[in-house]
Amino acid sequence: MAKPTVSLPQGTRDFGPDIVRKRQYIFTTIRTAFELYGFQPLETPAMENLETLMGKYGEEGDKLIFKILNNGLDKKEQLAREEFEKILQGRNTKAITERALKYDLTIPFARYVAMNQGQLSFPFKRYQIQPVWRADKPQKGRYREFYQCDADVVGSTSLLNEVELATLYAEVFNQLGVPVDIKINNRKILAALAEVCGGPDKMTAITVAIDKLDKIGLAKVEAELSEKGLDQQQVSIIRQYLEITGTNREKLARVKELLGKTETGEAGIRELETVLDYFDPSMQAPPLLIDFTLARGLNYYTGIIFEVKARNVQMGSVGGGGRYDDLTGLFGVPGIPGVGISFGVDRIYDVMDELQLFPADVQMGSQVLFFNLGEQESKTAFTLLQQLRAGNTRAELYHENSKFDKQFKYAEKKNIPYIVIIGTKELAEKTCVVKDLRNGKQISLPLEELLNFSFL
Amino acid sequence: MAKPTVSLPQGTRDFGPDIVRKRQYIFTTIRTAFELYGFQPLETPAMENLETLMGKYGEEGDKLIFKILNNGLDKKEQLAREEFEKILQGRNTKAITERALKYDLTIPFARYVAMNQGQLSFPFKRYQIQPVWRADKPQKGRYREFYQCDADVVGSTSLLNEVELATLYAEVFNQLGVPVDIKINNRKILAALAEVCGGPDKMTAITVAIDKLDKIGLAKVEAELSEKGLDQQQVSIIRQYLEITGTNREKLARVKELLGKTETGEAGIRELETVLDYFDPSMQAPPLLIDFTLARGLNYYTGIIFEVKARNVQMGSVGGGGRYDDLTGLFGVPGIPGVGISFGVDRIYDVMDELQLFPADVQMGSQVLFFNLGEQESKTAFTLLQQLRAGNTRAELYHENSKFDKQFKYAEKKNIPYIVIIGTKELAEKTCVVKDLRNGKQISLPLEELLNFSFL
Repeated sequence: MAKPTVSLPQGTRDFGPDIVRKRQYIFTTIRTAFELYGFQPLETPAMENLETLMGKYGEEGDKLIFKILNNGLDKKEQLAREEFEKILQGRNTKAITERALKYDLTIPFARYVAMNQGQLSFPFKRYQIQPVWRADKPQKGRYREFYQCDADVVGSTSLLNEVELATLYAEVFNQLGVPVDIKINNRKILAALAEVCGGPDKMTAITVAIDKLDKIGLAKVEAELSEKGLDQQQVSIIRQYLEITGTNREKLARVKELLGKTETGEAGIRELETVLDYFDPSMQAPPLLIDFTLARGLNYYTGIIFEVKARNVQMGSVGGGGRYDDLTGLFGVPGIPGVGISFGVDRIYDVMDELQLFPADVQMGSQVLFFNLGEQESKTAFTLLQQLRAGNTRAELYHENSKFDKQFKYAEKKNIPYIVIIGTKELAEKTCVVKDLRNGKQISLPLEELLNFSFL
Repeated sequence: MAKPTVSLPQGTRDFGPDIVRKRQYIFTTIRTAFELYGFQPLETPAMENLETLMGKYGEEGDKLIFKILNNGLDKKEQLAREEFEKILQGRNTKAITERALKYDLTIPFARYVAMNQGQLSFPFKRYQIQPVWRADKPQKGRYREFYQCDADVVGSTSLLNEVELATLYAEVFNQLGVPVDIKINNRKILAALAEVCGGPDKMTAITVAIDKLDKIGLAKVEAELSEKGLDQQQVSIIRQYLEITGTNREKLARVKELLGKTETGEAGIRELETVLDYFDPSMQAPPLLIDFTLARGLNYYTGIIFEVKARNVQMGSVGGGGRYDDLTGLFGVPGIPGVGISFGVDRIYDVMDELQLFPADVQMGSQVLFFNLGEQESKTAFTLLQQLRAGNTRAELYHENSKFDKQFKYAEKKNIPYIVIIGTKELAEKTCVVKDLRNGKQISLPLEELLNFSFL
């Protein structure tokens, strides 16, 4: 076999038929739920102006943005040579690169809302399922091109949005059959904790430390907090906070004792109570669980935060989100608050693959292959094929009159469950043989009955 | 209203909810047809190694490829400075750019087949619906990011594939309701024409001239052919060829007289006859029409070629394709012939928009909005909402208890056809008011009957 002379860029993937089908199943489930909940689809281009993206993801993020080289530099040789020095200093210049690949879906969404605010009706509920690109070091489970899958409501401070998003999470994971816990907390409660333990300027230190709890354990979190200047008593309050257990109601009662006297704490607790109160108690698992240890790294969250963890597998979170105060301020349009959630599609795929949760029919391409056994035979087959397709059966006719073996092998390799055989004898008798390759069973049918056969 | 400080890169577009929905309708129709015909989905990354793409699209094409700037150039300053000189000479260097955005779906498909030939079962039938990027001068109807939508069969020379693809075209345009002519010709017949008129080396000149017939007319085509060295008698044969009219059968008979004596001509005619013979005569319009003036610019076609033209609108072709001899030879894997077709999705969209062919329900987002008229009222609404969603009705609850007017306006602006009102009176009586905003009609219903209401 000839050896190909090409390869794929590092950190990118081809998705062959089986994988596309399984991914589509996840996307379709999520998209359908988004639409049932009144979210509208939005698509933004792969590329944005570089200046739209730069400075939005921190210094590390900036370095991971894929920049696109301008075409036609040879026409502005001298300028380009000068400006290239800026690139070599790690800076940017429109003369060399004015466009870049999008790094996430949030900034393009903010850009869209800022540009179209006059035409949109608020609250604006949009979802977006598109690839993003990061020049990160590729490793297992981390790619340079991957999909994000976000739903956001902007222009509303109502907690009903949080209720809807929590319910949406529950509905999607329920439908996918992925066992998860949906965790919920409130940045306001963390702010109250900071207020009680050293003042608001300790908020970041406390959040960062708590965020590591899973990885480093309570003792090291406490050590880190002491290092950051918290005294014994303050660290002790944080320990009490992190050790709160019980049902949602018990946890709320406990945190109320600890932080309910602060205004922020009280507001945060009331928000959680409202969301839990609306969240349909009759809803099947997965449940909505208060987890006061949930912090979420991103600094821009200001209210309720979510995280979804898959049960029974070693895997980071498969979803997360929260409320933020100001989406479009970066682009000169202040005062648009919002709340959003995101699905980690690659991880959901891995969990579903590991736990074998994909329904069998998702993995099926064509349902039936007609054998090709001669010109007249194949013409008859072709007519039947068209009638089956008209009835939404995915069907093929083998492309040429080859040996039985070869046609069998094609069906097997393509994982086609049924074959239909129309040979000379069948043609004369106006019948056909239908064989289920999964169990080897076959039956003979009059041609006209084939159209009512269920190829499942 | 605050003025945003951002813009989109030239030649790219945001697709808001209404447009995404209409585009999805086209994609879904095509995708469903592809799958009914046994084509399997494939997705390749947005970026390819630059060397995979360069030199595949001619000199002009190379210039239109979006190249991606390497990150971390500042770490290799001296090398980068030297290598940048190559870029300034219009050449490429991996030290500055090793990746690029894909320019079409054909070369990535060829790369995929070359890399995975051992795992694929031939004939391999794949479809691919993805964006591509070209650094072309943006103008009306020409974008720098646009979708292509291709289906190809490789590893088979059987004409059944051509039959299937012609039928697929007919089926898709029939379902979309777009009136079209599907034109068919054969490069072998054009080769025979060249053979008879000046020899095989005149093939390109003749094809190029014929390809302009639509734009410049017969007289100028003849002039161009004379310029290229064809004598009066040869030009006269080409005129006779181009003036062939009648039904498919009449055209075939006429071309047989003209070119049927050459071996290539005879083969080409026989192939057309076979395809027409299989093409289901009972199939509704659109018809498959022989058009001997069809040439298709691309040099790599070697057999039957297709082009689809929309009727009743000023618009170029909305689809095209044909057979080629060697897909993967460029990548060191020879001997894989194929045939493929492509849908021009942006143009199909424009035609459907102009002729108002999109079904009304494609343009509908949420089907029903529940008014929010107080805490108890909205809790009842929320429960009903969840039940409707469980039955696949796309439904929303207005996010806060605002004035009637504001909630009405939201429904109208979002084009939501139904509103459901549950106020104090309704809550007490366990009823609700359902109003169809399109005709202003409203009825009162017991709450439990709402779940059986048809929100269409």
